[in-house]
Amino acid sequence: MATNLEDLIVNIPDFPKPGIIFRDITPVFGSADGLKAMTDLLAQKYADRGITKIVGAESRGFMVGAPLAYAMGVGFVPARKPGKLPRAVLRETYELEYGTDELQIHTDALTADDVVLLIDDLLATGGTAAAQARLVQQTGAKIAGVAFLMELTDLGGRAKLEEVTDAEIYSILQATEE
Amino acid sequence: MATNLEDLIVNIPDFPKPGIIFRDITPVFGSADGLKAMTDLLAQKYADRGITKIVGAESRGFMVGAPLAYAMGVGFVPARKPGKLPRAVLRETYELEYGTDELQIHTDALTADDVVLLIDDLLATGGTAAAQARLVQQTGAKIAGVAFLMELTDLGGRAKLEEVTDAEIYSILQATEE
Repeated sequence: MATNLEDLIVNIPDFPKPGIIFRDITPVFGSADGLKAMTDLLAQKYADRGITKIVGAESRGFMVGAPLAYAMGVGFVPARKPGKLPRAVLRETYELEYGTDELQIHTDALTADDVVLLIDDLLATGGTAAAQARLVQQTGAKIAGVAFLMELTDLGGRAKLEEVTDAEIYSILQATEE
Repeated sequence: MATNLEDLIVNIPDFPKPGIIFRDITPVFGSADGLKAMTDLLAQKYADRGITKIVGAESRGFMVGAPLAYAMGVGFVPARKPGKLPRAVLRETYELEYGTDELQIHTDALTADDVVLLIDDLLATGGTAAAQARLVQQTGAKIAGVAFLMELTDLGGRAKLEEVTDAEIYSILQATEE
């Protein structure tokens, strides 16, 4: 199953700059078989762990996390960029190559009783995922796992995320950026 | 079922300005029952219409469209803002209150053989939905329907969208902006 998904990734050499291989994952979603394989694999892996909510990061994390929430029969909470959520929010900032960005969730999106699976499409440097984990920790909810469609293993994201949470980190596919 | 979904919408009076009621739909996704009710209702409505792809608009359309694609056993194609898709794209611009914005899909995301259901969370003035329809029409694919979680009936979006496509326009919930 993982092999099939790997076949759907489109590798774009020297994008956005020389020496970098960009991994385009949109064809996984565009394929009925790809979307089903990805979703069923994660739903099966995280069954029976008491998960009550999936938190997905804007915005490709929505495409991985929302179908998974449906398949698992739980709710989906978007972790969004500033200015997108209309009510009171919790915030976590994280560093980019140049400057900073921020993720937010509604203050009432999770409670301390929730058991959360964090989802994003890609684990790269880990900045977004670490911010996503800290957001959930602000609510007192338990993080039961962190899952990605793809991990770029040469960017140190896993180590950065492990500094923030003890939860198991899982990626369906692994690749390198260079 | 539709009544249950309506109960999940949070109405925010005088946001973003006096006289406007903002309809916050994120609690529909956050509720396991809401996500399931919305998805199953649309999957049932559009079964047996030969749909091959769902096209959802950035980014709340991803939260409606991707679970629906999974439930229907078809692929999901994101219609994205500029700078998000890494390969060759088709483009459609649309007008905002101040200025313009643009939606894009990868040129290879659809073919003339595809039968497409267009999805977004909200039908307001119809600008985004009309651009989404024109994008799909560029590919030669057939539009089998356009569906929204909520329609704001006092903003003329339905008429604007009908200028672009003859496909059936459907909204699960209806409300007004004022």
